[in-house]
Amino acid sequence: MIKASLIFGIFLLFIQPAFSQSDSVFIREIYDQALVNGQSHSNLKFLCKKIGPRLSGSPNAQRAVYWAEKLMKDYGFDRVFLQPVMVPHWIRGEKETARIISIKSFNVNVTALGGTIGTSVNGLTAPVIEVHALDELKQLGRDRISGKIVFFNRKFDPKPIETGDSYSQAIDQRYLGPSEAAKFGAVGVIVRSLTHSLDDYPHTGFTKLTAGFNIPAIAISTNGADLLSKELSVNPSLKFYFKQQCKMLPDVLSYNVIGEIKGSEMPNEIITVGGHLDSWDLAEGAHDDGTGVVQSIEVLRIFKAIKYKPKKTIRAVLFMNEENGVRGGNKYAELAKENNEKHVAAIESDEGGFTPRGFNFDASNTLVSKINSKWKKLFTPYYADQLVVGFSGSDIIPLREAIPGVVLIGFKPDSQRYFDIHHTANDVFENVHKRELELGAASIAALVYLIDRYGFN
Amino acid sequence: MIKASLIFGIFLLFIQPAFSQSDSVFIREIYDQALVNGQSHSNLKFLCKKIGPRLSGSPNAQRAVYWAEKLMKDYGFDRVFLQPVMVPHWIRGEKETARIISIKSFNVNVTALGGTIGTSVNGLTAPVIEVHALDELKQLGRDRISGKIVFFNRKFDPKPIETGDSYSQAIDQRYLGPSEAAKFGAVGVIVRSLTHSLDDYPHTGFTKLTAGFNIPAIAISTNGADLLSKELSVNPSLKFYFKQQCKMLPDVLSYNVIGEIKGSEMPNEIITVGGHLDSWDLAEGAHDDGTGVVQSIEVLRIFKAIKYKPKKTIRAVLFMNEENGVRGGNKYAELAKENNEKHVAAIESDEGGFTPRGFNFDASNTLVSKINSKWKKLFTPYYADQLVVGFSGSDIIPLREAIPGVVLIGFKPDSQRYFDIHHTANDVFENVHKRELELGAASIAALVYLIDRYGFN
Repeated sequence: MIKASLIFGIFLLFIQPAFSQSDSVFIREIYDQALVNGQSHSNLKFLCKKIGPRLSGSPNAQRAVYWAEKLMKDYGFDRVFLQPVMVPHWIRGEKETARIISIKSFNVNVTALGGTIGTSVNGLTAPVIEVHALDELKQLGRDRISGKIVFFNRKFDPKPIETGDSYSQAIDQRYLGPSEAAKFGAVGVIVRSLTHSLDDYPHTGFTKLTAGFNIPAIAISTNGADLLSKELSVNPSLKFYFKQQCKMLPDVLSYNVIGEIKGSEMPNEIITVGGHLDSWDLAEGAHDDGTGVVQSIEVLRIFKAIKYKPKKTIRAVLFMNEENGVRGGNKYAELAKENNEKHVAAIESDEGGFTPRGFNFDASNTLVSKINSKWKKLFTPYYADQLVVGFSGSDIIPLREAIPGVVLIGFKPDSQRYFDIHHTANDVFENVHKRELELGAASIAALVYLIDRYGFN
Repeated sequence: MIKASLIFGIFLLFIQPAFSQSDSVFIREIYDQALVNGQSHSNLKFLCKKIGPRLSGSPNAQRAVYWAEKLMKDYGFDRVFLQPVMVPHWIRGEKETARIISIKSFNVNVTALGGTIGTSVNGLTAPVIEVHALDELKQLGRDRISGKIVFFNRKFDPKPIETGDSYSQAIDQRYLGPSEAAKFGAVGVIVRSLTHSLDDYPHTGFTKLTAGFNIPAIAISTNGADLLSKELSVNPSLKFYFKQQCKMLPDVLSYNVIGEIKGSEMPNEIITVGGHLDSWDLAEGAHDDGTGVVQSIEVLRIFKAIKYKPKKTIRAVLFMNEENGVRGGNKYAELAKENNEKHVAAIESDEGGFTPRGFNFDASNTLVSKINSKWKKLFTPYYADQLVVGFSGSDIIPLREAIPGVVLIGFKPDSQRYFDIHHTANDVFENVHKRELELGAASIAALVYLIDRYGFN
């Protein structure tokens, strides 16, 4: 059945290139290939289980570079190459410990924020002041903050349908909280983990460093945050102790890994599909962003398997260092500009490997309306037809300035489960669903196919 | 913010009842109520953890009846009542065991099919013949089947996007396989578990009983099926042993549980929303169909909480005995007809409590097109806007003949994960996601609201 309809699809492609029936037949072939012969799941298993966590600058990140390069060479892509880039090398050191010291005392689950500094070897012990917004720092003033640990405890808002919106609303606490609190004399920061889920898993993530205002900053699990808040309400003079040994080492040479299928008609026009190869260190970087990595590679593999010869050059770009610096994304854009590359579109998959919903376009309403009127119906049978204006991806955003005219696109999976596991010890292979992952890869391949054939005009 | 926009919503409802802006504001209130103050998840936890498996006729099923009745009374619904219905009482007996007896022997994971008969106390041992379709029985004929165990091993097709389609294509093996094989002299049947997932969990489920052709029938896990098939390929004369003690006891009195909010303008026009209270016995009946039960109750709770006074009567109907007889569904339809009840619409949630996609309408294309043109845009912000022709639900199908004109509707969640856990020991509370469950309840409430206000005209 696959073969028969493939031949039918190709027949239509050559005889009636403008007839959209051929596109729906061809897209069905893409999905069949992903679902019947898909390799994204087994590739993800290797990346998660045989390599594991891949923090920038770590030996594992380097192993992931070699693995991805070899995998794409083994698939016979036309060109596979590395793009050198210097990346930060932050290390966590021994596992963090923390304790609420009150009438009774409690150990709580914490994890250092990425990029932060360690405490002294004896840890840090200080009174705690709880706030819910950055604005409160100014209202409280230096007198009430100085010498204390500031506890940012604003909860995820349950109302947004997209959990990414709740994340965007809460992230200032983690990203800016520590350096802002330091300006008022805080000696440390505790940040409530960025999730709806009430559990014992702390969520790490990048915090902004500001010269002269670096203080130890730690994420606390949501259960831990609720406990601390409750204890503070009965004993405002309690103290909090935590100890972490993290530090920043000198930058390390690493690489973006790129594989491409050369365009048969317009080899100088490039469509990229990418994810980031680095991950946080607490688990396996499965959904963040192993799934984006294997889906990007799978797009090219699918095209080769079903013998689709793209007109434009299709590139899988595996970026290094999205989590704590975006050096890979910046380097890719810098070199694309330097080499005068023409990028038609850049797609990133970095919101998890969950069941697909569609795509976010970092583009005008006019363009997105046009795309909807042309292509939406082709994605409806796969429930991936939400083609909307929205956020694309951290690694491809630098292309916007570097290559004017490139259309930036973010793969949009269902968002409900992502922040349960995001940046935690739970981001493991077992939490990725095989079919959901494969459907995502197929959806991205279908979009790349349409852009390759028709562009955006 | 909730209160302000609620007042705004109600203001619009009364002043401009035909202005659709008011509907979108009101539907947003429904979602806010479900996401911020939702009780479906805690209700499900009680049903799963404090009651547990609820096979028709079991003491637990009766406890579930009392629990649901009390819960809806406690919520202050206008009327809560029980509908007596006699249900089958099948029991599994002691845990099944099974073994491939070949050059080496292997224990494999099995579970008796619902409704099937036991083996002798010594178990059943016989050679095995593997088939992939019911048609093959006739081709093989009595000579090659008689005295053997027939092993139905057709795999789930990975190509359908909806996993329910793969289930529909495979279910004849489980539902008809045993009695059909018996007609050719088979002494037992093994059925490959109905799932894409390759694992060690056998999936039970109902098998049709045909007088004079009842033989012991068992489901084998997919890993077990692959192992058995592989062993058969090297040793076609291997034997299979299994032992099960299940049996059918006399029918038992049980109940549908019904709660309603009386219509303020057209109390005789009824909209039902339902799920089934019984479950298989291997786990907690969480997705099948605890989620449908708590979502149905939650719809009425939401309306009360946001002070929506429906024009029509809204009923939560918790059906008994969907899994092995649909006696509750049949009884409900029979009584609705007897009492000349006017049912406008019946909605069932029995495809899992996963992230919502939309609704299936067992209705004409014309009606579904009309519904789309009126309401689709109201569901788009919630990604629940697939309003399509499709299967409604086993418990409400009997209404079609009983009450001509009723529109039957099936809640349509994302289907990818359902058959991983369906009818297995994995159908537990922990596998239901709080927000996904709540979004489903809100989607159903939004649809009930629209039908209540506008009907289908």
